[in-house]
Amino acid sequence: MTTMTRIHNFNAGPAALPLPVLQRAQAELLEYNAQGMSVMEMSHRGKAFEAIVNDAIANIRALMGISDDYAVLFLQGGASLQFATIPMNLRRPGEVADYVDTGSWASKAIKEGKIQGETNVIWSGKAENYTRAPRPEELAFTPGAAYVHICSNETIGGIRWPVFPKTEAPLIADMSSEIMSRVIDVNRFGMIYAGAQKNIGPSGLALVIMRKDLIARTPDTVPIFLRYDTHAEENSLYNTPNTWGIYFVKLVTDYMLEQGGVPEFQKRNEAKAAALYDVLDSSAFWKPHAAKDSRSIMNVTWRLPNEELEAQFAGEAKKAGLEGLKGHRSVGGLRASIYNAVSMEDVQALVAFMKEFERKNG
Amino acid sequence: MTTMTRIHNFNAGPAALPLPVLQRAQAELLEYNAQGMSVMEMSHRGKAFEAIVNDAIANIRALMGISDDYAVLFLQGGASLQFATIPMNLRRPGEVADYVDTGSWASKAIKEGKIQGETNVIWSGKAENYTRAPRPEELAFTPGAAYVHICSNETIGGIRWPVFPKTEAPLIADMSSEIMSRVIDVNRFGMIYAGAQKNIGPSGLALVIMRKDLIARTPDTVPIFLRYDTHAEENSLYNTPNTWGIYFVKLVTDYMLEQGGVPEFQKRNEAKAAALYDVLDSSAFWKPHAAKDSRSIMNVTWRLPNEELEAQFAGEAKKAGLEGLKGHRSVGGLRASIYNAVSMEDVQALVAFMKEFERKNG
Repeated sequence: MTTMTRIHNFNAGPAALPLPVLQRAQAELLEYNAQGMSVMEMSHRGKAFEAIVNDAIANIRALMGISDDYAVLFLQGGASLQFATIPMNLRRPGEVADYVDTGSWASKAIKEGKIQGETNVIWSGKAENYTRAPRPEELAFTPGAAYVHICSNETIGGIRWPVFPKTEAPLIADMSSEIMSRVIDVNRFGMIYAGAQKNIGPSGLALVIMRKDLIARTPDTVPIFLRYDTHAEENSLYNTPNTWGIYFVKLVTDYMLEQGGVPEFQKRNEAKAAALYDVLDSSAFWKPHAAKDSRSIMNVTWRLPNEELEAQFAGEAKKAGLEGLKGHRSVGGLRASIYNAVSMEDVQALVAFMKEFERKNG
Repeated sequence: MTTMTRIHNFNAGPAALPLPVLQRAQAELLEYNAQGMSVMEMSHRGKAFEAIVNDAIANIRALMGISDDYAVLFLQGGASLQFATIPMNLRRPGEVADYVDTGSWASKAIKEGKIQGETNVIWSGKAENYTRAPRPEELAFTPGAAYVHICSNETIGGIRWPVFPKTEAPLIADMSSEIMSRVIDVNRFGMIYAGAQKNIGPSGLALVIMRKDLIARTPDTVPIFLRYDTHAEENSLYNTPNTWGIYFVKLVTDYMLEQGGVPEFQKRNEAKAAALYDVLDSSAFWKPHAAKDSRSIMNVTWRLPNEELEAQFAGEAKKAGLEGLKGHRSVGGLRASIYNAVSMEDVQALVAFMKEFERKNG
């Protein structure tokens, strides 16, 4: 590891992690806190690990301003399992749930919703090639809906909701690709969930923030493991959790608090995103995908005049130490994911590369 | 980490991991294989990680002698999620499934089975305080059952099946606490599954070995994420898997192959278990829990003349660097989990402590 050069990591997830956190995990990998063993070898029912879980939860509550009205859970299966368990737990027989279709991830949630019951897609950006979130006046919610589901930031399209809708039914948001990247008011939501592998840790862990009254809604027919109350009652220790993942989230959130919390990261993220969008807006060579008011500050997506140039861009960038810029296989084009752990220096390297690429090929 | 003393780790899971594997993971934590990033920061869709998944699967196939008739999957949610998804996928409406109740873990599987449909408990060891597996002549299978479910080794009771039953229906075994600890014939089973955190890796990962014809059984009503075919068709990359866990299983199975494979670990495990059972059989001070023919070679359980002595034993052992010997909170007593990564030296330290404890308190 002595001669290592860290590349500029623009991966969409799993993604860049803060170097000081990686270094700390490395230093204590063989022995955690004088326990005589690795954190991976510790019982999840012992005091040492219990402290890690509780510290991680306390950090998340502090970073996001989460009140006692909400439970904070660490689950497995990523956001994809949540797509299935949300309708299973929160939409009782005969009820309808509203979904907003803003892109690939919202669509996956809708697909799981439809398998299990009445799923009303109240707005879809598909006809516009998923370039924006809906405007408030475009949303007609179903009266009495069990919940309204949105994906707050679409990793693949690179769009986000600039403002969250006001809903009568509990608002549920998949925030996988933007969790803790900007200040949000948790009290606006019934439930927020996120796979950890973009902004707050390694993969294999999902964070769920859920209003406690919703936890009590689950019908008796739902399998034990797939019920939110099962995990809430046991402080996420009903069964063996992903202990390494939770440990790592604790380290990342420790680091975030030291650095100034979510407001500080929002400031950095907005500056990083602005640097990239400035290039994309500077000439007709660049074709940014997202509509201006829906631009994500986590996933910046664009096209070039043709696919050959796009492939050339990704290939040359990789050689220059800029990794992960190829767009998702389902949509093509180019994408830079600039999560919390991606630095302004990483972004500046990309900006310099982009300008040079345009000079040569524009 | 320079002054570290590794304790003797008898934890039931998460549990001891091989020191050379931990050292390797530590050495390459900041940079995996000249990729310029940690394995945790790599895309699960990139070539480097794809090679890790495929190597891990190839290692498991080699170690267990798994034919192409079976799929090898890495899932999340541990064995506990399997308890729910097995009946969901493999017992069609109107069918009955047979379960054998050998202890805590078999009972948990039965509980999930009962929520979803007809669950026939064809034998229970409960009245005998779960001290043994059933004898072949005690098992009356239901004709036409969808499957027969067993837990091959009960971590909490410390009992195992000495011989596996012959069944007409596919035999499904939870092998969490003994996977790759003894040679078994995979072809006897329809499905084998195991949480990784006892013998083959960290927590947050489940290994599923499933006969391919069973994968096709799932009814259309089952949610996408909870279907085996979803994950089988995508080589466990339908969604972002626990990449660190899969990487670690690759390292552990590399190490196991270097050391001589499952037959070598079986030999070591039998020797370690014999050393402990020899003490437990040496005087009336020790009260081994399991019937002789059902004794686990992974989890050795016993009682002492009274609970005060048991607490004293666990406390003094901990001070002597012997960790994790308290029995599970649900049954009390004492337990030594001696998984593959626990060495004969660890066991000898425990044996010496036991003899001295008996001398002082017997």
